[in-house]
Amino acid sequence: MRAIAVDAMGSDAAPLPEIEGAILAAQAQHAEVILVGPQDRLLRELERRSAKGLKIEIVHASEAVTMEDEAAKAFRRKRDSSIRVAARLVRDGKVDGLISAGNTGAVMTTAKILLGTLEGVDRPALAQVFPSSVHGKASVLLDVGANVDCKPLHLEQFAVMGEIYYRVIFGAEKPRVGLLSNGTETHKGTEATREALARLNELNLNFAGYVEGRDLFNGRVDVIVADGFIGNVALKISEGMVDTFSSLLREALSSSLPSKVGYLLSRRAFERMKKRLDYSEYGGAPLLGVKGVCIICHGGSNANAIKNAIRVAAEFSEGRVNEKIERELALASLSKN
Amino acid sequence: MRAIAVDAMGSDAAPLPEIEGAILAAQAQHAEVILVGPQDRLLRELERRSAKGLKIEIVHASEAVTMEDEAAKAFRRKRDSSIRVAARLVRDGKVDGLISAGNTGAVMTTAKILLGTLEGVDRPALAQVFPSSVHGKASVLLDVGANVDCKPLHLEQFAVMGEIYYRVIFGAEKPRVGLLSNGTETHKGTEATREALARLNELNLNFAGYVEGRDLFNGRVDVIVADGFIGNVALKISEGMVDTFSSLLREALSSSLPSKVGYLLSRRAFERMKKRLDYSEYGGAPLLGVKGVCIICHGGSNANAIKNAIRVAAEFSEGRVNEKIERELALASLSKN
Repeated sequence: MRAIAVDAMGSDAAPLPEIEGAILAAQAQHAEVILVGPQDRLLRELERRSAKGLKIEIVHASEAVTMEDEAAKAFRRKRDSSIRVAARLVRDGKVDGLISAGNTGAVMTTAKILLGTLEGVDRPALAQVFPSSVHGKASVLLDVGANVDCKPLHLEQFAVMGEIYYRVIFGAEKPRVGLLSNGTETHKGTEATREALARLNELNLNFAGYVEGRDLFNGRVDVIVADGFIGNVALKISEGMVDTFSSLLREALSSSLPSKVGYLLSRRAFERMKKRLDYSEYGGAPLLGVKGVCIICHGGSNANAIKNAIRVAAEFSEGRVNEKIERELALASLSKN
Repeated sequence: MRAIAVDAMGSDAAPLPEIEGAILAAQAQHAEVILVGPQDRLLRELERRSAKGLKIEIVHASEAVTMEDEAAKAFRRKRDSSIRVAARLVRDGKVDGLISAGNTGAVMTTAKILLGTLEGVDRPALAQVFPSSVHGKASVLLDVGANVDCKPLHLEQFAVMGEIYYRVIFGAEKPRVGLLSNGTETHKGTEATREALARLNELNLNFAGYVEGRDLFNGRVDVIVADGFIGNVALKISEGMVDTFSSLLREALSSSLPSKVGYLLSRRAFERMKKRLDYSEYGGAPLLGVKGVCIICHGGSNANAIKNAIRVAAEFSEGRVNEKIERELALASLSKN
C-alpha cells in the first residue's frame, strides 16, 4: 500500500476534515496515511474517533500556513509548517505523495522548491477536474493557476502531462486533448496559442485542435490545455456559476407553495444533480510535473474530498504517472532532433 | 423616434425572428424599424402578419452572409449583403443604428470598415451583458471577442467605453469597474494586465481593481474588462454551463415519478429562473467604439431578443453613448499630457 502525507492544517475547518478524511481513506484501504500537524491535538482527535487499528500515523509540525500568508514568505519563514514538513516526507522518500487543502500558492511554491521538477518539465501545472454533462465523464483543465504568461513550449508540456494523468486516473486509453481558444478555426487564438497548436499537432496525441469555453463541459474532449491565467479565470467562472445557479434554484423553489412542495418531491433528484457537480468527488487538483505526488484540495473540502484526494494520490503513484511523463517528454524532444 | 436598421437575414431562423421582433419593437414604439433583406419575401411576411400602420420599412438587399462565410471575404465579395446594406444606412445617416443576429465576425468587420471608429478609440470592443445572482442586476463584460492580443492602452479604452455604456443603458450613476485577473492582489495577472491596472487607477472611474472569474455573476462589479481572447473564453464557458445545468436539471427531474410530479409543481419557478439566465432579455452585444450604433445578437435569437436589441440600440443613440465616449477619452488623454 502507498503512503500518503496529509497536511492536517490546510482546510478552512482544519484539522477535522483532514482527520475524518484520513480515517475514511484508511478504512477503505486507499493508502497508509501520515497526518502532519500539531501532534497532541491530532492524537486527541484521532483517539476520540476510535481510529485504532487503522494505518494512520502522526508526524509533528509546529506551524501552519494561513490563507493570508504570502507564498514565498511563508516558505522562508515558517520552516516547520505542516505543508513544508509534509513535502519533506515526500522528498526524503518516506511517503509517496502529499495532499493539502491549504493556501494553494504556498503549497505550489513549497512543492516546486522542495520536490523539484521532473526531467523535461520547465513548469509544473495545476490540473483541475471538471464534471461534464455526459454521464460519468469528467474533463481535466490545466493549467488553472500555477503559471501566467506561458510560452508555447509550456503549453506543449502541459498537454503531455494532462494526457498521461487522465489516462491513468480515468482509465481512458486515448484521451482526446484540446487547446483552449476563442474559436475552433486555426487562424483564431493568440500568437502563443497558434504556435502551441502547431507543436501539439506534431505530438503523438489524440489531438482535437482548438476547443472553446463550452467544450469544458460537453465531453467533446477529455483534456483541455490553457495557460494559467486563462485556466484560472475559467475555473473561477465555473465555480461562480455553480454558486449562482444554486442560489437562483433555491430562490425559485422557495417562491411559492406549489414550488416548495415540488421541491420536496424532487429533492433526491436535486441532490443527485448536486453530487454530479460536486468537485469534492473528484479528489483535488494535482500539481503535475513535480517529483513525487502533490494534490491540492479546495479550502472548503469536507472529509469526503480529503478521502478522494488520498485515493487519487495513491493511484497517481501506483500508475507511475511521473515515469510516464518523463518518458513521453524525452520522446517528444528526441523526435524533434 | 430613432430609426434602427435590422439585418433581416442574420439569425439561424431568419427572417422570422427579425420580422416578428421588428413588429414587437414597432408596436412598443421603441423605434422606427427598417428591415434589410430580400424585399419580396419580407413584404410577403409582413403582410401576412398585418403589420399595417406600424413604422416598419423595407430596404432591399439581394445577398446574405452565412455563418460559414469568412468575415473579410464576405465583406469583399457580398457587396449587396443585408449586413453591408444595413451598415451603409447607418454610415449615410439614414438610420441611427443597426442590429444583426448574423455572423459575428462579418458584422464586426463590416461595421469597423464602413462606420469607422470614434475619435480616440483604437479598437472597438464587443460588450456582453451577463445576468447576476443579485436580483435585477446585470454585469457587462468586454471585450468578448473582437480583439485578441490586447495592449494595456486598449484595455483602458474598453474600461471607459464599458462604463459609459453601463451608465446609459442600466441607469447606474457610478458603475463599478473591475479588471479580470487570476487573483485580486496587485502582483497577480500578466504583464499586460498589471500595466492596465496602473492605467485604470489613474482614470476618473469607480475602479475596483482586479476581479476574478466568479465576480462576473455576484454583483461585485458592474463592468468587467478583459482582452478579447479571455473575454470570449469566459462568455462561452458561461453559455456552456447554462446548457449543462439545464440538461442536468432536466435529467434529474425526469428520473423518478415523485421528481416528475415535483417538476410539474415547480415549473413556473423554473421558468422564472430560466428567464433570469436568459441572454435574450438583455438585448444583444453592442460593438462599442464604432460610429453609429451596432448591436450583435446571438444566432439563436428569438423575436423577443430582436425586440430588446432594437430597444437598446435606440437607447444607445438617445443616450449619446458615442459622444460621451469621445469626450471621456479626450479628457483621459489630456490629463496625461
